[in-house]
Amino acid sequence: MSEATPESGLESGTVYLVGSGPGDPELLTVKAKRLLENADVVLHDKLPGPKIIEALPEDRREDVGKRAGGERTPQSEINERLVELAEDGKSVVRLKGGDSFVFGRGGEEAEYLADHGVPFEVVPAVTSAVAAPAVAGIPVTHRDHASSVSFVTGHEDPTKEESAVDWAALAATGGTIVVLMGVGRLPDYTAALLEAGMDPTTPVGLVERGTWPGQTVATGTLETIVDVRDEEDISPPAVTVIGDVAGTRDAVVEFLQNESDDAGAGV
Amino acid sequence: MSEATPESGLESGTVYLVGSGPGDPELLTVKAKRLLENADVVLHDKLPGPKIIEALPEDRREDVGKRAGGERTPQSEINERLVELAEDGKSVVRLKGGDSFVFGRGGEEAEYLADHGVPFEVVPAVTSAVAAPAVAGIPVTHRDHASSVSFVTGHEDPTKEESAVDWAALAATGGTIVVLMGVGRLPDYTAALLEAGMDPTTPVGLVERGTWPGQTVATGTLETIVDVRDEEDISPPAVTVIGDVAGTRDAVVEFLQNESDDAGAGV
Repeated sequence: MSEATPESGLESGTVYLVGSGPGDPELLTVKAKRLLENADVVLHDKLPGPKIIEALPEDRREDVGKRAGGERTPQSEINERLVELAEDGKSVVRLKGGDSFVFGRGGEEAEYLADHGVPFEVVPAVTSAVAAPAVAGIPVTHRDHASSVSFVTGHEDPTKEESAVDWAALAATGGTIVVLMGVGRLPDYTAALLEAGMDPTTPVGLVERGTWPGQTVATGTLETIVDVRDEEDISPPAVTVIGDVAGTRDAVVEFLQNESDDAGAGV
Repeated sequence: MSEATPESGLESGTVYLVGSGPGDPELLTVKAKRLLENADVVLHDKLPGPKIIEALPEDRREDVGKRAGGERTPQSEINERLVELAEDGKSVVRLKGGDSFVFGRGGEEAEYLADHGVPFEVVPAVTSAVAAPAVAGIPVTHRDHASSVSFVTGHEDPTKEESAVDWAALAATGGTIVVLMGVGRLPDYTAALLEAGMDPTTPVGLVERGTWPGQTVATGTLETIVDVRDEEDISPPAVTVIGDVAGTRDAVVEFLQNESDDAGAGV
């Protein structure tokens, strides 16, 4: 067992796989906040958002998102750094945007740590896949509209030759589809869903920077949303919600207080 | 606009639709904790779990889960009570287990409040659908195993004549399937998935009371999991995870620190 650090509750030589939530610092969990305040070192990229990153003390954080040349730090290098710091006796937080286990590569990191005999703990978080739609007034499930919800990523492994996502099967579920990091490939998968026979009038919502300063929301249908994206200049990071639930926003937005915070006005 | 209550940040006459997360009080968000500490009244049922419920002051909470006779309080009655309290000038937290918008009827409550002109705010939470598997060492997505994850509920509207969930379509996605409240109907949907052609050796995990005291984990395959459930006496509330990701637990459990907390030992 690793040595206890009673004041903070953190163990030295241990890695904490922590999700930041969608970006609003108040949507950190109580546990994530405690760990961030007390860890010897925090490894992060840009996705936790500016407000959470800026609050981390500079001498205890390492940005492993991009390297000097601008290219992404390989996952293998991040894995090695986690083991190195833990073996050096540090308490280490690996901080990811959203939840580490929802398209966050937390599973790979957990396996690597276990393979190298490093104790670790998983600290679940608010996933942007639920939270970004929610603050825009879109429930991902609804008793009247959606018995299931599926999360996919629009940002797939570029080494894969074909899309591993079966859009026709997702359409056939009849449930809500939420695409994370899905702005760039929006034309591809809306076309795939239309081809699979999904109703062209199905409501679609785009939530850019959900819960961040400058949150922007745009809505349309499966047929119109690519044009809406271009007109409203929706850029990454953003979440796409496809399904009748996206129509809920119009019914509730007038009384939705989330809109009137420091987030930008919705469309 | 409603009257400001500057000390706490809560507005009078406003309803906050707040998720509690999976049950560990440290997995409340910072915002949920602040709202719970300062709201005039909190409406809740049992699903937030004993530790979170017990921490609420008795004179400021109302249990709307079950009525005196033991039957469930109708949703219509809860909706009316929310409006009544808000119109009476109270700051009201409607607290649900997990996230309000993931099978939590938050969408219906939001629509009802908007229809009645009551301002409201949505406070997203850690969903048990992600968190219960996570603390058991099961990532719901994995670069090598799952490009998508679908969430369904095993506890459907009893007024529906047939299952609205298309299990064959879910199987065809090739992604992870997470069933919330899915202990009772486990035999039905494992049979449906096998009939749809899913591999009988697909790993399945059951996580009972994830992050609660007495957390219990059991694993098997699509073919064996019903027997495992019976042998290990897995009872509601529990989450079922179906997919290759469920096999990750075995690879990491030895170094997984979440197991050694006050949660019960896993299987």
